[in-house]
Amino acid sequence: MTNSKPSLHTVFSPSLLKLYEVKDAVVVVIDVLRATSTIATALFNGANAVIPVDDIAKCINISNAIGGITAGERDGRIAEGLQYGNSPFEYPREFIAGKTLVLTTTNGTKLLHMALSRGASHIITGSFPNYSAVCDYLLGQHKPVILGCAAWKDRVNIEDTLFAGAVISRIKEHFSIQCDSSRIAEMLYDRGKDDLYGFLESNDATHYRRLTSYGLQEDLRYCLTKDVAGIVPYYENERLIIHKQR
Amino acid sequence: MTNSKPSLHTVFSPSLLKLYEVKDAVVVVIDVLRATSTIATALFNGANAVIPVDDIAKCINISNAIGGITAGERDGRIAEGLQYGNSPFEYPREFIAGKTLVLTTTNGTKLLHMALSRGASHIITGSFPNYSAVCDYLLGQHKPVILGCAAWKDRVNIEDTLFAGAVISRIKEHFSIQCDSSRIAEMLYDRGKDDLYGFLESNDATHYRRLTSYGLQEDLRYCLTKDVAGIVPYYENERLIIHKQR
Repeated sequence: MTNSKPSLHTVFSPSLLKLYEVKDAVVVVIDVLRATSTIATALFNGANAVIPVDDIAKCINISNAIGGITAGERDGRIAEGLQYGNSPFEYPREFIAGKTLVLTTTNGTKLLHMALSRGASHIITGSFPNYSAVCDYLLGQHKPVILGCAAWKDRVNIEDTLFAGAVISRIKEHFSIQCDSSRIAEMLYDRGKDDLYGFLESNDATHYRRLTSYGLQEDLRYCLTKDVAGIVPYYENERLIIHKQR
Repeated sequence: MTNSKPSLHTVFSPSLLKLYEVKDAVVVVIDVLRATSTIATALFNGANAVIPVDDIAKCINISNAIGGITAGERDGRIAEGLQYGNSPFEYPREFIAGKTLVLTTTNGTKLLHMALSRGASHIITGSFPNYSAVCDYLLGQHKPVILGCAAWKDRVNIEDTLFAGAVISRIKEHFSIQCDSSRIAEMLYDRGKDDLYGFLESNDATHYRRLTSYGLQEDLRYCLTKDVAGIVPYYENERLIIHKQR
C-alpha cells in the first residue's frame, strides 16, 4: 500500500501515548475543560505567553522569577497561594494583554511533557475556542498528527474525545487514518455536534457534573464554543506562544 | 449521594486497568475477534476447559502435560508447532467435547492475568456469542463490574468497545455508572447495533481489515452473532470452565 497522506492517530489518555510513534509528529494537547480553552483565550487576548506547569510550587517559583500571573485551581477554587483560577473569563484583554500566565494544569501539562520527551516535532494545544485555527495548522504541516486527549487523571473523558472527533471530521480527507480510536471519536462528535453542551449534559459526563457542581455552567458553554479565540498556542522554550504563520 | 447500586466501569485497554479498583470486582475480559468468542464456543460445545496462555512454548508444554489440544495463530495462520487455529469453527461439538483446549491469545490473556494479579473477585470472558449469558451473570452478582477490553496490542479497538456498549445497554439500570468510557461505549453500540458487521466494515475497523484480508469473513460474522453459545466462561485454577449457576 502506498499512501502519501500523513497518518493521524487519536490517543484517548496519556497512559496510551507510549503505544504511538510520537517522534516527528505534531501532537495536539487537548484539555477542553478548561486548560486548553483558557490557554487559547489568554493568548488570543494578548498574553505574551502561557507557561503550563504541573504543580503549585513550580507555578509560584516561575512566576516570581519572571513577574508572571499565577493561576490554578483545586476542586473548583483558586488554589492556595495562587492569584487566579482556571476560568477563561478571568483573562480578558484588558487584564492579560502583555502579561505572562503561569498556569497549573495537571492533566494537560503531563501529556505535553510526555510528548516532548518522546520527541514530538511540534506541540500545540487544541480546544473548541481555537478549533478552526488548529485544523488549518494541521492541514498546513503535512506531518503525522497525534490528537492527544489529556483526559482526567488518565481516565478517558467525553469532552476531549469530542474535540478530537471534531478535528477529524474536518481534516480526515487529508490524512491516512488507520486508528479505531479516531473512528470512535469521529462517531462521538457526529452524535453530539448539534448541541455539545446538551450532549455532555444528557450523557452525564463526569467532568460536566464536576464543573456544574461548582456553578461553572458559563465556563462550560464557553469551552464548547467554536472559534472565539482563533489562534494556535505553540510550545517553544518551555512556554506556549501564538504560532505565527510563515 | 447514597447509591446502593454497584459501580460499572469500562476499560478500553489493558494499559488503563491500573486506573481502576479491580479488587473485589467482577472483570469481564472482552476479546471479540476472536479469542473470547472461540472460548465461549469451545466450552458451549462441550470442551472440559480452555486454558488461555500468552505464548506458544507455554501452550505446547501445558498441552503435553495434560493431553490437550494446542491452538493459536500468527498473522492469520496456525502458529508453527500448534495443531489448530483461533477460529470458532474449528471447535464443533463432535471434535472438542470432552477435550481441553490450550489457546494462545496475546491480548486477552494479558488482561486476564492483570485482573488476577490486581485481586479481581471473579473473572469471566465476554463476546457476542455469549452476550445474554454474560449480562445475566453480571445482574446476578451484585458486585462492581469492570468491562475490560483486551484491545489490540493495547490500542483501543471498535469491536471490544462495541461489546462493552452492548452489555451496558442491557444492564445499566442496575448499576451506578460514573464513567465516560462507558457512555462512549454505549453510544457506539447504539450507533452500530442494527448491523454490527456493516458497522465495522463502514468504519474500516483495523481488525475487520486484518481478518478480511485473511479471508475470515465468516469468522467475523459469527463473532458478531449474539447468543449462539450461551454459557459463561469462568476463570478458576488457571483455566476457564463453564460457570454453574447455584
